Amino acid sequence: MFFRQLRQFAKKKVLTIESIGDNVKKAEYAVRGDVLKKAQEIQTSLSKGQTYPFKSLTACNIGNPQFLGQKPLTWVRQGLSIVVNPQILDCPEILAYYPPDIIERGKYLLSRIQGGVGAYSDSQGLDVVRESIAKYIEDRDNIGPSNPENIFTSNGASPSVETALTVCISSTQDGVMIPIPQYPLYNALITLKKGQPIGYYMDSANGYWTMCVEEMQKSLENAKKNNINVKSVVVINPGNPTGQVLSVDNMKKIVEFCDKNGLVILADEVYQDNVYMPNKKFTSFRKIIKEMGTETELFSFQSLSKGFYGECGIRGGYMELMNIDKDVKDQILKLASIMLCSSTLGQIAMELVLNPPNPSMPSFPIFIKEKTEILSALKRKALLMHDLLNTMDNISCNYVEGAMYAMPCVKLSQKACEAAKKVGLPPDKFYVIKALEETGIILVPGSGFGQRPGTFHFRITVLSPEESFRELLLSFKKFNDNFHKQYRD
Amino acid sequence: MFFRQLRQFAKKKVLTIESIGDNVKKAEYAVRGDVLKKAQEIQTSLSKGQTYPFKSLTACNIGNPQFLGQKPLTWVRQGLSIVVNPQILDCPEILAYYPPDIIERGKYLLSRIQGGVGAYSDSQGLDVVRESIAKYIEDRDNIGPSNPENIFTSNGASPSVETALTVCISSTQDGVMIPIPQYPLYNALITLKKGQPIGYYMDSANGYWTMCVEEMQKSLENAKKNNINVKSVVVINPGNPTGQVLSVDNMKKIVEFCDKNGLVILADEVYQDNVYMPNKKFTSFRKIIKEMGTETELFSFQSLSKGFYGECGIRGGYMELMNIDKDVKDQILKLASIMLCSSTLGQIAMELVLNPPNPSMPSFPIFIKEKTEILSALKRKALLMHDLLNTMDNISCNYVEGAMYAMPCVKLSQKACEAAKKVGLPPDKFYVIKALEETGIILVPGSGFGQRPGTFHFRITVLSPEESFRELLLSFKKFNDNFHKQYRD
Repeated sequence: MFFRQLRQFAKKKVLTIESIGDNVKKAEYAVRGDVLKKAQEIQTSLSKGQTYPFKSLTACNIGNPQFLGQKPLTWVRQGLSIVVNPQILDCPEILAYYPPDIIERGKYLLSRIQGGVGAYSDSQGLDVVRESIAKYIEDRDNIGPSNPENIFTSNGASPSVETALTVCISSTQDGVMIPIPQYPLYNALITLKKGQPIGYYMDSANGYWTMCVEEMQKSLENAKKNNINVKSVVVINPGNPTGQVLSVDNMKKIVEFCDKNGLVILADEVYQDNVYMPNKKFTSFRKIIKEMGTETELFSFQSLSKGFYGECGIRGGYMELMNIDKDVKDQILKLASIMLCSSTLGQIAMELVLNPPNPSMPSFPIFIKEKTEILSALKRKALLMHDLLNTMDNISCNYVEGAMYAMPCVKLSQKACEAAKKVGLPPDKFYVIKALEETGIILVPGSGFGQRPGTFHFRITVLSPEESFRELLLSFKKFNDNFHKQYRD
Repeated sequence: MFFRQLRQFAKKKVLTIESIGDNVKKAEYAVRGDVLKKAQEIQTSLSKGQTYPFKSLTACNIGNPQFLGQKPLTWVRQGLSIVVNPQILDCPEILAYYPPDIIERGKYLLSRIQGGVGAYSDSQGLDVVRESIAKYIEDRDNIGPSNPENIFTSNGASPSVETALTVCISSTQDGVMIPIPQYPLYNALITLKKGQPIGYYMDSANGYWTMCVEEMQKSLENAKKNNINVKSVVVINPGNPTGQVLSVDNMKKIVEFCDKNGLVILADEVYQDNVYMPNKKFTSFRKIIKEMGTETELFSFQSLSKGFYGECGIRGGYMELMNIDKDVKDQILKLASIMLCSSTLGQIAMELVLNPPNPSMPSFPIFIKEKTEILSALKRKALLMHDLLNTMDNISCNYVEGAMYAMPCVKLSQKACEAAKKVGLPPDKFYVIKALEETGIILVPGSGFGQRPGTFHFRITVLSPEESFRELLLSFKKFNDNFHKQYRD
């Protein structure tokens, strides 16, 4: 027995950090990285009674609205409770609590789903859901019908992004252009798939983040020089982490650029319902491409997790394919079928969000009240965030035109950079960890998204409860201004 | 405009069947392949009024119980309706319809989930869910506690399998052993990840499918000769598509084999609740490994889609890691975090299934009645399937000891093989398509799972409604016996 144990002890594991692939090791996802680990340690200490300069942590690191108190839409949750427990439909006393329109919708949805929500749906998603998605897209863009056959549902937008990247990356020399800063999903998945992430800098001058086609062209030329076959471009609009809402002109230039250079567009449009600036509105790449009459190949992503619905945990989303070759679409369907189907409840929730009650329906007043309250609070907070951040020492913040984040630039002194180096941290992570330790606010350092060398940023969400939002920012201001005093060169 | 269109027309797409990766093109998933496409064509014709020798199609191709009429468990659906619509908890009139235990459970679950089911959970899954899973595993195996930190929830078992394969395949020379016949998820994912699927034949003699360590050794030696670095072995128990329930002796030999050869076990145990033979019971690889005292690295998969629950559409599942290196686990957590989290509703449903009402609780009588009815019907159908298939010409079928499928062998004549060749089909697919056209029964040809050269099989589920099950099999018998008459050599 002793020798057996000894032998086992000496035995090297098959799976070790050395034996697993470099693509896995190199993939990074900063939104849930080191800073969050530190936060979890603090959480543990807090619950054991250790005192900090704050009472509790505030998760400003991730776009998770309901975690921070945003209420779900009554319409969506009532609908889900009916399809998940159709026995409700046999109880008049229960139904008395449900508005007739959601009962009708629940019945209709169930009538269209053989076997109910417990059965696998078609791999692309339920017909009834894809029909509503297509109708929503048609109404949104006002440029002709969308075909449900081009829509693939998924568990959030992320698996759709993964599928699109799977067909865009066929060799280790295939490149995908991604904005800097970017939502790190893209970098992580491209690395995992052994493709080449090709960053292009966004322009942050004049108070607005914008896409700069000249930068894109420069980055493309550079990649070509390195024998990288760039096939696709990721555009995030409204921007994550940058919060910009692209103008139609800007978008047209991007489409021209892609058309000229033979590039597929991966349009991350999951924040399409999050536009706060009165002079801005969301326009889809689908609309731009149709109006320009190009045949640019497009994957467009939408999610149940953002907008005014914020149903992150339920995992719903989809992608729409446009101008994608039929044979390629067949391969995408095959990929979808390997994973069987996306969550039917995520699909149904998406249907309920995109096909909401209209003004003549009994659920409308509550629905519109909830929607308006959520969006107007986000709008007020986005404005306040911008204004207050710009009062802080060494911080400059562009307008938060949309999405759920500000991505301010923070100037860090030589002294701060040296202090960071001493503890083995990049300067922005050092700053963010100090902020965490002193305020309990969890941020994501700019390096997690990419930033121009020598500049430092952090991402902060606009999702904390409004009643304490100003106070939160003021406590952050206090930290920030002290930090810069302490590390003044 | 005309020239523009002309230019566009002439323009080659970026994504074409030629430009996408071979790994994508080569990945096959027969359960939803050509035969299903044919079935969809027939469905369309049927709905347009075309007549066939049958009134409707019967989907015996996929393990999708609720699609075929199996009812969901009341306990699970009541629980889900509470967590998804907590407003119910404020309505005494509604609550009067819910047993007090499920109300209490719903409240407890909600108390443990910050932000409710609409918030992202931790990437590994909700604490409260992983605690219940660990408790279930502990009770099942009776060999010491399971650690919730080793459990990762996922949307069905498939994404867990994908993650395990991601860390097991780090180069194109890395091999994964898979049984033949196998559930095609494995072959498809290994191919997608550019690894080497290394088949090993199962033994089908004497009325039982078993794992044959000699065959595994032979297959491993062969792979080594081809410079393939085999790191892991997939074992499916109870078997899909083969329906076997492995004996403890058989399992011990497999663990010894893996231990000796330095192989990680990927144990697909999603049918652990589907055992029908009175003399057989499910034993987990976890238990075997613990009892043997080896340090074999193990990933064990479980799903919400199978068992007596059959909640395919809700997408719940998990994997448990055992003896996996800490650094590798950290990488797996990072991979999970890229996709944020699995469906919270899938997680909750898994909790409700694995932590069901006990005999002292008011929900118990209905729960146990539903569970028993489902399992005993499956048992009766599994037996009837075996018996009736063995009365059919040229068909021999092993015992359906567990899971949801029979995988009978069908002898096809020279004449049948030639007829198949004429229409460009493999013989087993030809047979299965003929069966579809004449009976409306959708099967999966054996080639989709792998089979010994020169032998032909098909997979048929035991999930069709019991009241018409015998009739269904008799209509199949009629087809089969006629087929063999028609193609007699």
